[in-house]
Amino acid sequence: MKRVCGESLSALPHVLFAANLDVLANCLSFTAPYLLLQFSDCPFLGGNGCFSLLLYGHMMLPALPNGMESVADEEFSEVLREPLLLLQDQRSRSNTTSQVAIVGSDLCPIESLDYEIIENDFFKQDWRTMGTVDIFQYIFIKWTLCFLIGVIVSLLGFLNNLAIENIAGVKFVITSNMMLARKFVVAFIVFASSNLGLTFLSSLVTALIAPEAAGSGIPEVKAYLNGVDAPAIFSFRTLVVKIVGSILAVSSSLNVGKAGPMVHTGACVAAIMGQGGSKKFGLTCKWLQVLKNDRDRRDLVTCGSAAGIAAAFRAPVGGVLFALEEMASWWRSALLWRAFFTTAVVAIVLRGLIDVCLRGECGLFGKGGLIMYDVTSANISYHLRDVPAVLLLAVIGGLLGSIYNLLLNKVLQIYNMINTKGIAYRIILACFISISTSCLLFGLPWIASCRLCPSDASEPCPTIGRSGNYKKFQCPPGYYNDLASLFFNTNDDAIKNLFSKGTDTEFHHSSMLIFFTTCFFLSTFSYGIVAPTGLFVPVIVTGAAYGRFVGMCVGSNLNLNHGLFAVLGSASLLGGSMRMTVSLCVIILELTDNLLLLPLIMLVLLISKTVGDVFDANIYDIIMTLKGLPYLKPHAEPYMRQLTVGDVVTGPLQIFHGIEKVGNIVHVLRTTGHNGFPVVDEPPLSLSPLLYGLILRSHLVTLLRKKLFFKTPTPVGLDAFLQFSADDFTTKDLGHCDQIDDIELSEEEMEMFVDLHPFTNTSPYTVVETMSLAKALILFREVGLRHLLVIPKVSGRLPVVGILTRHDFMLEHVQNLHPRLSRNRWRRWRLQFS
Amino acid sequence: MKRVCGESLSALPHVLFAANLDVLANCLSFTAPYLLLQFSDCPFLGGNGCFSLLLYGHMMLPALPNGMESVADEEFSEVLREPLLLLQDQRSRSNTTSQVAIVGSDLCPIESLDYEIIENDFFKQDWRTMGTVDIFQYIFIKWTLCFLIGVIVSLLGFLNNLAIENIAGVKFVITSNMMLARKFVVAFIVFASSNLGLTFLSSLVTALIAPEAAGSGIPEVKAYLNGVDAPAIFSFRTLVVKIVGSILAVSSSLNVGKAGPMVHTGACVAAIMGQGGSKKFGLTCKWLQVLKNDRDRRDLVTCGSAAGIAAAFRAPVGGVLFALEEMASWWRSALLWRAFFTTAVVAIVLRGLIDVCLRGECGLFGKGGLIMYDVTSANISYHLRDVPAVLLLAVIGGLLGSIYNLLLNKVLQIYNMINTKGIAYRIILACFISISTSCLLFGLPWIASCRLCPSDASEPCPTIGRSGNYKKFQCPPGYYNDLASLFFNTNDDAIKNLFSKGTDTEFHHSSMLIFFTTCFFLSTFSYGIVAPTGLFVPVIVTGAAYGRFVGMCVGSNLNLNHGLFAVLGSASLLGGSMRMTVSLCVIILELTDNLLLLPLIMLVLLISKTVGDVFDANIYDIIMTLKGLPYLKPHAEPYMRQLTVGDVVTGPLQIFHGIEKVGNIVHVLRTTGHNGFPVVDEPPLSLSPLLYGLILRSHLVTLLRKKLFFKTPTPVGLDAFLQFSADDFTTKDLGHCDQIDDIELSEEEMEMFVDLHPFTNTSPYTVVETMSLAKALILFREVGLRHLLVIPKVSGRLPVVGILTRHDFMLEHVQNLHPRLSRNRWRRWRLQFS
Repeated sequence: MKRVCGESLSALPHVLFAANLDVLANCLSFTAPYLLLQFSDCPFLGGNGCFSLLLYGHMMLPALPNGMESVADEEFSEVLREPLLLLQDQRSRSNTTSQVAIVGSDLCPIESLDYEIIENDFFKQDWRTMGTVDIFQYIFIKWTLCFLIGVIVSLLGFLNNLAIENIAGVKFVITSNMMLARKFVVAFIVFASSNLGLTFLSSLVTALIAPEAAGSGIPEVKAYLNGVDAPAIFSFRTLVVKIVGSILAVSSSLNVGKAGPMVHTGACVAAIMGQGGSKKFGLTCKWLQVLKNDRDRRDLVTCGSAAGIAAAFRAPVGGVLFALEEMASWWRSALLWRAFFTTAVVAIVLRGLIDVCLRGECGLFGKGGLIMYDVTSANISYHLRDVPAVLLLAVIGGLLGSIYNLLLNKVLQIYNMINTKGIAYRIILACFISISTSCLLFGLPWIASCRLCPSDASEPCPTIGRSGNYKKFQCPPGYYNDLASLFFNTNDDAIKNLFSKGTDTEFHHSSMLIFFTTCFFLSTFSYGIVAPTGLFVPVIVTGAAYGRFVGMCVGSNLNLNHGLFAVLGSASLLGGSMRMTVSLCVIILELTDNLLLLPLIMLVLLISKTVGDVFDANIYDIIMTLKGLPYLKPHAEPYMRQLTVGDVVTGPLQIFHGIEKVGNIVHVLRTTGHNGFPVVDEPPLSLSPLLYGLILRSHLVTLLRKKLFFKTPTPVGLDAFLQFSADDFTTKDLGHCDQIDDIELSEEEMEMFVDLHPFTNTSPYTVVETMSLAKALILFREVGLRHLLVIPKVSGRLPVVGILTRHDFMLEHVQNLHPRLSRNRWRRWRLQFS
Repeated sequence: MKRVCGESLSALPHVLFAANLDVLANCLSFTAPYLLLQFSDCPFLGGNGCFSLLLYGHMMLPALPNGMESVADEEFSEVLREPLLLLQDQRSRSNTTSQVAIVGSDLCPIESLDYEIIENDFFKQDWRTMGTVDIFQYIFIKWTLCFLIGVIVSLLGFLNNLAIENIAGVKFVITSNMMLARKFVVAFIVFASSNLGLTFLSSLVTALIAPEAAGSGIPEVKAYLNGVDAPAIFSFRTLVVKIVGSILAVSSSLNVGKAGPMVHTGACVAAIMGQGGSKKFGLTCKWLQVLKNDRDRRDLVTCGSAAGIAAAFRAPVGGVLFALEEMASWWRSALLWRAFFTTAVVAIVLRGLIDVCLRGECGLFGKGGLIMYDVTSANISYHLRDVPAVLLLAVIGGLLGSIYNLLLNKVLQIYNMINTKGIAYRIILACFISISTSCLLFGLPWIASCRLCPSDASEPCPTIGRSGNYKKFQCPPGYYNDLASLFFNTNDDAIKNLFSKGTDTEFHHSSMLIFFTTCFFLSTFSYGIVAPTGLFVPVIVTGAAYGRFVGMCVGSNLNLNHGLFAVLGSASLLGGSMRMTVSLCVIILELTDNLLLLPLIMLVLLISKTVGDVFDANIYDIIMTLKGLPYLKPHAEPYMRQLTVGDVVTGPLQIFHGIEKVGNIVHVLRTTGHNGFPVVDEPPLSLSPLLYGLILRSHLVTLLRKKLFFKTPTPVGLDAFLQFSADDFTTKDLGHCDQIDDIELSEEEMEMFVDLHPFTNTSPYTVVETMSLAKALILFREVGLRHLLVIPKVSGRLPVVGILTRHDFMLEHVQNLHPRLSRNRWRRWRLQFS
């Protein structure tokens, strides 16, 4: 199977050692700022038989002895086939930043996105000719796309719920019926094998068709919205696998959620809509292909991820806030409004669909499903004396959340090692987790003793059918198994049972403790498998169990019932693990439909987040770091104030002249991976060397393809614009850049000249080389740049010193250049809390 | 009464004509980029007897004929005493931007705020010596301040409600009792005179003590959060007047709200807390004086305004979102969290206080008051056939909202003209509005016919006491006056009546129409008087009447009751006038405590905002423009792409050398109003002229005060730092800058030198002069700058071309420089909707 992902990577080593070392150093500094080369068993290079060579930005490579090239070549390509994470574990001076990162479950080359408006002469020309009709079309299509995203995501969310409830429902009904007939062994075999089958299918499609669909996808989408582009995260293939895989994985009783995958699905839908369909699958719509730049796509993806949460939890306002607080790196008031519109569409469509289901036309769905957790608002009252218990719950919840993050981090590191051994290992791991889960879910309820059905139960006891508070399991008639009511159920139903009021006597202390512990560990071990898995629902269910347990321990003389404690427990674990505030608060409010709880939920979230922040980062940041996604934080690290831009910028640079030879351009484009080149005018075009601007690789490729060449170095006239349309310069489909190798040029053409002036961005952002790194980062991040030109302080030299890119700001890069910099923990705290 | 506000302004003309014209032009370009000078009755200057001279950035003043100076001086000072708005109306080529703006109801000089981190040697020194204890203290105090802000604002909000309910309540009880005794004339006299007295008091304290407290304050706070500082908006005096004046104005039955003043109050509390108390009133706390810079204050003020809305509407999440969507120009995730914490404190404290009131210890408050509008969640159901009526309501609501904005704009323009005639006129205007309001409120109910009390009314009919749906007014026993139930009541109670369910037959069509029309006009005419007045509640009550009227007209066969229509009507008018989305949605949800309404409210808000946006800007932006506050929008206007930075930047510049003579500094500081000066090193300090950095006026003043002078131009050693503490360089109290005139220097000292290097910000942001204006604006706005240095493209000249400040980006400034630029409405639309 040919995939974009990995191709350019494996081609790299050949380039590396074929070209001369100077070019190599130059090339590496941009395509892969620092890669570790390992030469093992080279006694003449180091006493310990092993020596790590750190290659980054233009540090000269030591001249290799003759005959070493081929060895190094092989070694290097092997290194490149290994995930970065593995390298990291083996070496102390390691790096997580590079232009290769783990996306889903595979290593992929990543690039930055171009958010900057390219102000070249051509762009200005285009802007002037843009008429009122064009502008209306643009606005209309933007809003139409948001509408369509809303409709499609809500339909997908509905389908997702419908499918899960029905597949898992049938499974539970069949096994329950066997249990009723006391065929316990057969029931277990049916239960375990159907789970195994579903998990196997899910991991198979994920591993084979779209490894990018593995995991929740939230870290990838978050990185995308921060400006990191990985090839296939928003492909049609990924979308299909994400939907199908998520349905299968959740139906297979794995302790995984559907909210994360829904966010990725929403983002996928938005990105595909934004590029007017999927070319590969022939599903394109010319009419929709107006939004051909990274800025508009970023906005759409933000709206898509808001729609995802809105559809998963039926929480439209919560979805907008989630996208705002957790996902988006850049946010405008106009975007808030569009995201709100999108989630409003989701809310309205879902309401309509639920009306259909309430009429009973959705199979097993409708009884459980979307209308999630009604903590009905029968006048809740709470007083000051309830607060200490809630505080305790919040503090411990915060602690548990940070332990959860720690554990998940460790488990994912181990899993990544297993995953790199091959597809077979990945699938075996998933199957192993599935079997273990089945054993636990079926085995643990046997520990619990049967409990007598309460006489005043609000629903039939024991439950006949699927959802309900009282599962019979192995118990005699008139009795129920409280642990089975939680384990032998979908997560949604388990949450509903835990949140339900008037059931304070339903569960036993030990059952709740067993359920909490099992969920806690199962969810950490289930997340990393090669299947679309979410974290939200597992954390909610674990937190609910924890909260209810606390409620049982402290709560006999309090006003709060155990259901409310479960809600607060969920909030505390979510706060301790995901560290959101307003969005979680609103999501929980919209889930439980009870505004009176607001002050308590706010209190719990604030405390648990504070406690969690003392120990580690939020779970999505941890996963992003683990995956090596170069996320650009909004604030500068303290030590960056001690460095100037000149301290981290690396040369030499590839510079083009205003009128450049075609051959030079082709050579540079073929031998480097740079995406932006400064254009400098030199005498006779100007009196002294002047920085004219910055030209993008993609624009150069377009220029070469159009072959607007001249025999002599002549400036191009206005007629040049007639040969180009605005479409030529728009961003192409996601992950499908024009390649320089696709263009064929004759020897004669290589000797000709091309005028770069009209296509050069004449207003690139610049910083003086003595600018502090911290302030340059603020500029880079706030404005959303890909290239930041560094100009010299003293004139007379070249008018440009270097280019700063995302990787130059990465902590690891800076620390490698300046290893003695202090990383004072408390100073970073100040930033975090300020 | 001596006030900061206006002082520096009246001093200006003397400077203007005393100094030579070159210095003048230079000075004006920064202190007041363009002021209109009017020379009336100067026949030799223009045929029409009047000629406007536009002074801005270094356009040369025409040489005035001898003897003109003194005339111009007088004329000029008179012009300066007039509000900008008035000047505007008289001249076609007018400007709203200048460093003078209407704050509250008075003209004030305004300045920009310094958000940039000043990275000079001293700052770096200070950062290195900052220990863990300091950092913890900083974090602790930040959070403590948020906690205190939350507590104080909620107490003030509670006090506000308590006072209003009791004062207005007593008034209504007394007059109602007289009505019962059928003493109608006496009742009217008591009603009208008490209203007049309250209004008079309110406008008196506002006009005499703190004109900054007039109006809602939201535009001023919004401008502050955008970086515009006006002297007294956050003074202790303003705070007191705002609280007292708002209570009096709302109690006096004027159709004004308390939410806007609460936002200003919250912001005031935050700002005063942030500077550690009020020096003027001797209420300072050394311990809290850690946050001495504009960034930290901005954050606190954001939290304060969130707390204000939270306290006014008991809507903690809505408060955070309001601050985020409407108020703040810069937002970080960390700030979201702190604002959330502040409003959580407000929610918890308010809950405790309400518990107290429910026990009946708050006088007349508690029955009405805080627990606002319970649209109790008795299972609302609505279906597809209800949607057309809602759509209609939303569209008309949007139209009405934009008409409301238009009308308010016109009324405020007229009011501003009246207000400038003197304090007496202002107070008379307020009294006139009060008398008119009393007449309408008392007179109009007589039109309505008495209605028979329903037999199944859920409360006593007619109402005995204050709040309730059925007011007796002039009717016989057993009857009630539906119009009096709305008019003869506080706004809060009127809203509660309109929102109430099960009262579909209570009101007559004509009554509702009369009430709507009256409220619509009364609220526009009441807002502009010299008293603390809000817009939120009047718009809600007007919208509720409108919605209920629509509900009456269409709704007999719909599922939605009239109370719900009233809620939706409020949403539509709010959306059409204030143009917020998510925050309004959440505020309405928190007000009505009903999540089931969510999809409908979202729909209504989206449509009404869209309809409104077609016609005009949102109400706060209109008021800000009217006041001449230089608000920096987040996006660039299309025509800015056609200009370079060089096209708008204005020289000549005041530049200091790295080691500068004291006399020069004093002269420049005295003769200009600049706040930042480039520092340039020239030979022999460097080989060629080099831009060393930017030094602030406040730092120069500190340097001069400390008198670290040398007889010869010597670089200063490290020991210089010992003479200064970090406190010397922090921002002083709001509106109390160190003045250069306070420093006394001897002749000898004036001849000495001072080394500016250690105190110069060595990392100022720079743009090349060929950078497009649009991109420079993005940088300026996103990073939050006060000064942006423009450097030349070709070296050899001076290393700095000019400084861009906020005013250089203002639409009017740019258009004055380049009058032919297109202002294509649709292109601006594209920005607005994209």
